[in-house]
Amino acid sequence: MRLPLHHNTIQHPKHQTIQQNHPRRHSRLQLLVLISLTSFASSGESFVLDSILATTRSKAASSSCFLTTTLSMTAPSSKEHQGDNTDQPISSISNNSMNARSSSSSQSWRSLLEISMAKTRKIRGSNYVQLATVNTSREPRVRTVVFRGCLTVPKDHALSNTCHDTSSTDNNPPLSCLLKMCTDARSQKVEDNANQSTAELCWWFPKTSEQYRIRGELILVGTEEDDRALTIARKELWGNLSDPARESFLDTTHTPGQQWNDSHDESTVIIDIPKGGRDDEGKVVPPPDNFLLMLLNPSYCDYLCLSGNQYRQIDVLRNGQWSWQRVNP
Amino acid sequence: MRLPLHHNTIQHPKHQTIQQNHPRRHSRLQLLVLISLTSFASSGESFVLDSILATTRSKAASSSCFLTTTLSMTAPSSKEHQGDNTDQPISSISNNSMNARSSSSSQSWRSLLEISMAKTRKIRGSNYVQLATVNTSREPRVRTVVFRGCLTVPKDHALSNTCHDTSSTDNNPPLSCLLKMCTDARSQKVEDNANQSTAELCWWFPKTSEQYRIRGELILVGTEEDDRALTIARKELWGNLSDPARESFLDTTHTPGQQWNDSHDESTVIIDIPKGGRDDEGKVVPPPDNFLLMLLNPSYCDYLCLSGNQYRQIDVLRNGQWSWQRVNP
Repeated sequence: MRLPLHHNTIQHPKHQTIQQNHPRRHSRLQLLVLISLTSFASSGESFVLDSILATTRSKAASSSCFLTTTLSMTAPSSKEHQGDNTDQPISSISNNSMNARSSSSSQSWRSLLEISMAKTRKIRGSNYVQLATVNTSREPRVRTVVFRGCLTVPKDHALSNTCHDTSSTDNNPPLSCLLKMCTDARSQKVEDNANQSTAELCWWFPKTSEQYRIRGELILVGTEEDDRALTIARKELWGNLSDPARESFLDTTHTPGQQWNDSHDESTVIIDIPKGGRDDEGKVVPPPDNFLLMLLNPSYCDYLCLSGNQYRQIDVLRNGQWSWQRVNP
Repeated sequence: MRLPLHHNTIQHPKHQTIQQNHPRRHSRLQLLVLISLTSFASSGESFVLDSILATTRSKAASSSCFLTTTLSMTAPSSKEHQGDNTDQPISSISNNSMNARSSSSSQSWRSLLEISMAKTRKIRGSNYVQLATVNTSREPRVRTVVFRGCLTVPKDHALSNTCHDTSSTDNNPPLSCLLKMCTDARSQKVEDNANQSTAELCWWFPKTSEQYRIRGELILVGTEEDDRALTIARKELWGNLSDPARESFLDTTHTPGQQWNDSHDESTVIIDIPKGGRDDEGKVVPPPDNFLLMLLNPSYCDYLCLSGNQYRQIDVLRNGQWSWQRVNP
């Protein structure tokens, strides 16, 4: 299997220069000092965009992913430092020395994702991801969807997909890898899924300059599902939607993608939708048939980190076990 | 052709409530007042995310897309107002009355995109987009790439793809629709492209809550290209890259995706890469064979706006002419 290559697509140029121009220049003592400096300085580096559209010097907002990878095991509670020292000489760090500490990360993609989510959870839209499918004409389709957390199913469930890495303990149980979203049965991706169930999700974290490309089977759970765990999960997700989101699923009059017609807004039509998806007593109405729980059951993840020193890791699920290795970015 | 539907995926719940609960309530005079209010208030609305990960109340940062669509023709120089009136009663706006002003936008996707880019060009990473392809196993692949502007080719060029809408004048010539990116010949998407040249790009603008799904043929321009315009464009893009980005293309030792090896960083290997992709006199060296100009030549765009009142538009290229219509979100 040839791995997907895309170091060319998004780059953090400054660090490549570092990597290439200062090999093996620092002692381990110097390194420790520099690690401390970096955690302050890396957030303020300049980031040169080549695009004709975005050339403004701006601040990155996170500490180095690489440092996160290597240090979070020993200092899990260390806070992010959001310095503004744009001229801090972080370019003097020896990438090579750093890498010697972790040529392979001790953390799976799932643990890394947990950290990325924790760092960005207060940012509006940080859980918006791009989901790609293939349609019946074998063409790619991709759209933004909302990631709605991971679903934990019983250990003996066919969809049980957990990640045990070195951080898994009794207190920190393995993390579920089953990604939860929802969709509408009228959506094109439902039609795509019937043809090709493999999907790929691209999750770009702007704050930390990290990308996860998560690949697996896309599973749709509707009203006719007979699996108890999935039926419960579908109902829970329905109940957790916002009132207006529920309304949108209950609005079966306005088929998405059909030509706009002002007469759609006749009050007579609108009245049929239970306000907020609730009954007269304020209780959430049952989910309509077109409301689908959408699960991505991953078997592969390509993780790329462009803040700090570039880092890339490929995680693969084989025989129910995740394993991972560091690869060239 | 059935259009892709995804109103279910990303939602701006508050406005759906507006749409459904207050049809035809306001006079045109009231509407004008409310338009003014909205341009101040919409930036500060609450945005309820259903995800278990992101429930924090936060501020949207742009004026309504719908207002942009309807008003930009008459007030192109109006500035964005980034108020903080989270409790401003914008929910009293009649969506129906608003829509009566433009059941179909007078602007093509390309003009709308120009506005979106202008609004966000100072934001780091605002030109990062997700590009989906299909691989030889008919599986979807998607990754983040950097959009590097549009390429204008001569009118009689086979790839000439321009958009004439009502804003096209002698002073505002039609906009080129040919999207410019670059890639590495070693990239998986190059292999994908040989099998299926149709690609889809998803561009989500977090600041304005807009999404463009742009579909078309993906064209790769390498060193053996004999078309003059494309050869020039490739060389220009190479020259416009940052020095470190050029270095990454010249680094043919570290194949992306191959297992990481600390010995990669031996000075002997590194020295072979011209620093900054420049010769001793500081002049940019010629692009290596693996540097490819990547063009997306669109024939379809699905535009969705979730800020302000929801708005969706489908643009299609037929016989060299773009046409568009408003559809249900």
